[in-house]
Amino acid sequence: MSTNSVNASIITIGDELLIGQTIDTNSAFIAQELNKIGVWVRRRVAVGDVYDDIWNALDEEGAQSDIVIITGGLGPTADDITKPLLCNYFGGKLVLDEKVLAHVKYLFEQVFRRPGALLERNIKQAEVPDVCTVLHNARGTAPGMMFPPSGGGGALFFSLPGVPHEMKGLIKDEVIPRLLKEFELPTIIHRTAFTAGTGESILAELLTEFEKSLPESIKLAYLPNYGMVKLRLTARGNNKEEVEKELLPYFEKLQDLIKEYLVTNEDVGLEIVVGNLLKAKNKMMGTAESCTGGYIAHLITAVAGSSDYYKGSIISYANEVKENVLGVRRDTLSTVGAVSEETVKEMVAGAIKTLNVDYAVATSGIMGPGGGSEEKPVGTVWLAVGNHQKIETLKLNLRFDRQRNIGMTAANALNLLRKFIIANG
Amino acid sequence: MSTNSVNASIITIGDELLIGQTIDTNSAFIAQELNKIGVWVRRRVAVGDVYDDIWNALDEEGAQSDIVIITGGLGPTADDITKPLLCNYFGGKLVLDEKVLAHVKYLFEQVFRRPGALLERNIKQAEVPDVCTVLHNARGTAPGMMFPPSGGGGALFFSLPGVPHEMKGLIKDEVIPRLLKEFELPTIIHRTAFTAGTGESILAELLTEFEKSLPESIKLAYLPNYGMVKLRLTARGNNKEEVEKELLPYFEKLQDLIKEYLVTNEDVGLEIVVGNLLKAKNKMMGTAESCTGGYIAHLITAVAGSSDYYKGSIISYANEVKENVLGVRRDTLSTVGAVSEETVKEMVAGAIKTLNVDYAVATSGIMGPGGGSEEKPVGTVWLAVGNHQKIETLKLNLRFDRQRNIGMTAANALNLLRKFIIANG
Repeated sequence: MSTNSVNASIITIGDELLIGQTIDTNSAFIAQELNKIGVWVRRRVAVGDVYDDIWNALDEEGAQSDIVIITGGLGPTADDITKPLLCNYFGGKLVLDEKVLAHVKYLFEQVFRRPGALLERNIKQAEVPDVCTVLHNARGTAPGMMFPPSGGGGALFFSLPGVPHEMKGLIKDEVIPRLLKEFELPTIIHRTAFTAGTGESILAELLTEFEKSLPESIKLAYLPNYGMVKLRLTARGNNKEEVEKELLPYFEKLQDLIKEYLVTNEDVGLEIVVGNLLKAKNKMMGTAESCTGGYIAHLITAVAGSSDYYKGSIISYANEVKENVLGVRRDTLSTVGAVSEETVKEMVAGAIKTLNVDYAVATSGIMGPGGGSEEKPVGTVWLAVGNHQKIETLKLNLRFDRQRNIGMTAANALNLLRKFIIANG
Repeated sequence: MSTNSVNASIITIGDELLIGQTIDTNSAFIAQELNKIGVWVRRRVAVGDVYDDIWNALDEEGAQSDIVIITGGLGPTADDITKPLLCNYFGGKLVLDEKVLAHVKYLFEQVFRRPGALLERNIKQAEVPDVCTVLHNARGTAPGMMFPPSGGGGALFFSLPGVPHEMKGLIKDEVIPRLLKEFELPTIIHRTAFTAGTGESILAELLTEFEKSLPESIKLAYLPNYGMVKLRLTARGNNKEEVEKELLPYFEKLQDLIKEYLVTNEDVGLEIVVGNLLKAKNKMMGTAESCTGGYIAHLITAVAGSSDYYKGSIISYANEVKENVLGVRRDTLSTVGAVSEETVKEMVAGAIKTLNVDYAVATSGIMGPGGGSEEKPVGTVWLAVGNHQKIETLKLNLRFDRQRNIGMTAANALNLLRKFIIANG
């Protein structure tokens, strides 16, 4: 097959995706993994648990792409129709796979700890079309399946369960190694510069000439995210060293052009940038969150190893907790209120003391939809950051819904902390 | 148009979706809103910023669906090609819309607070194809567009910006009202029973006969989510009262069959179920989180009005914070360790006292990938819940990745709290 463009389609199956009950995170994961090995995902399609719709999607995507990855529809319940459909589609018949059956038994007895006779529907999970190659699902009962290129399109099909951690294991352990063997793949390299403090239009203005100067093989994309903008350069080619060598000077030029707004030249979140700064300085931090309600703590502790620089947080949702645990003065709360510069300053000072840390960041604001007033409308937020010597503050006026206000506040707080650590070493 | 089946396709545009850099939350929102008014989303398709791929997707989805909703590709930067493409596709030419221009100016001057001459690229955002109806985007600079049915397919097309909060405003204020006017829509009603404490197979076994008894117009789906399973009944028909009347006895029967595992008969998260229980009893709660690192606090405070029953949390990531703020005994930490039944019991007692609450829940565990030992492997978690009189504990042995371990721990902690509140008043 061609070295230059191996295309994939991802088909996700399930009514829950089409009524919006479930957010599709599987496709993003699969796309990332395929991209890393140089497979370009051309299309992602979601269809419901509807026989004809699934069948048509197989036809369409098989005709357009070299690789088709299907997730979902393999569970033990009656709404899952994918396996018999695939069996018909590829002209096979269902047979019991003894290896899969042994694995299902093992999971029920040893892992789920539900010994006793397997249910008929669990045994059925060990049935596979006789025309497929079975892919071992170490984490669950539904096996993955690979169907060799056949028929008009000639695409290679993979069918995987929709449970995210099972799908992830199958992609990494089974699908990727087979694709690497099966295809001669091009190199795709992304480099991302992460900016804060300005908008897409201003950045685009700074980068107009730069963008015009890019060769065909390099592409620039703008990815706005919670008030920050990621700038991504993507280069394609056949030889990894050559692609890297071509991309590097452009990426350096890009960083130079936007240096005023540059946060990092890695595609990582602010919580990781802050964590790396703290580790390098061997310092510890803590948080004192009111309006963000633990979201900053969650972002930080979602990173493995964060205990190296993070001691904890006082989530002072009630004023009483601000007063009793963080030592905010009652007088402050009763005169200027919880959403005020003075309160967040006292929260930072209290967190540094209570948590015994080098740096702390504090948030207090009105996230909405209720709780606003004329003087302090929804979206009014005070942030403070400090160490033992110094405290700095920032006021935000946000204008979004609750969820986005919380996300924007957390991103701004982490960015404020980042700048403070750099400036005050 | 037919009363019985108005179908929609959602097309999302953007390379970021195809390399997995962004998770598509827009489609889920749009699907939910369409579903509420009885529009069935048949397909969701994601394509990159590639002219031919977008054009083909318009052709395909326009031929299959009555409504096509396109998001993304309308930003001010050069990677956004959707607007000129739509203009060609529908055979129009781009003209400056004075109303949109006035709105863009207003946003820059009054909201973004970046007065001064608008950039050429910002002015361009006010250009629209002369064949479309402009949809006012109150929250951003890129207008929405509606293209009337034309050509072979005869679908009604909407193009919306991809920024989630802008897209949401346009769907609610512009798209939905127009669809309600344009189509005679069927009624689609979902009722969801939320279970905890067992798996999909066991539930399916309990529901085999029930599922067989369902009429054509009612469908049952199983939606596993962090160790809980949602069971959703969906009914379709032309008359709202009739559909509700037909669905109700089936939904009651369903709840009765799985009553042992039933958490709630509303499609809400555990954090809302717990919040409603607390509000009804006029009680306050707090949390003491180690391994969940603020995720439980975040889930609770993401709900507007949670300050009525939630005072805050001590995120005691470091043992020092467990000891100094929560009063866990040094002796406990040094003998049985932080991940132990005794530690979480002392954390709960400390949280009740420090936060001055009626109920508290505590977590301590090893989320991975590092930090495990033979005695306490990754996935070992202790939970405790209590009030002034009593503390109960639960041990979990999880076997997932860090993110899922955190999510499973939070869900189990909230469920433990729910059961404790019900049992102990």
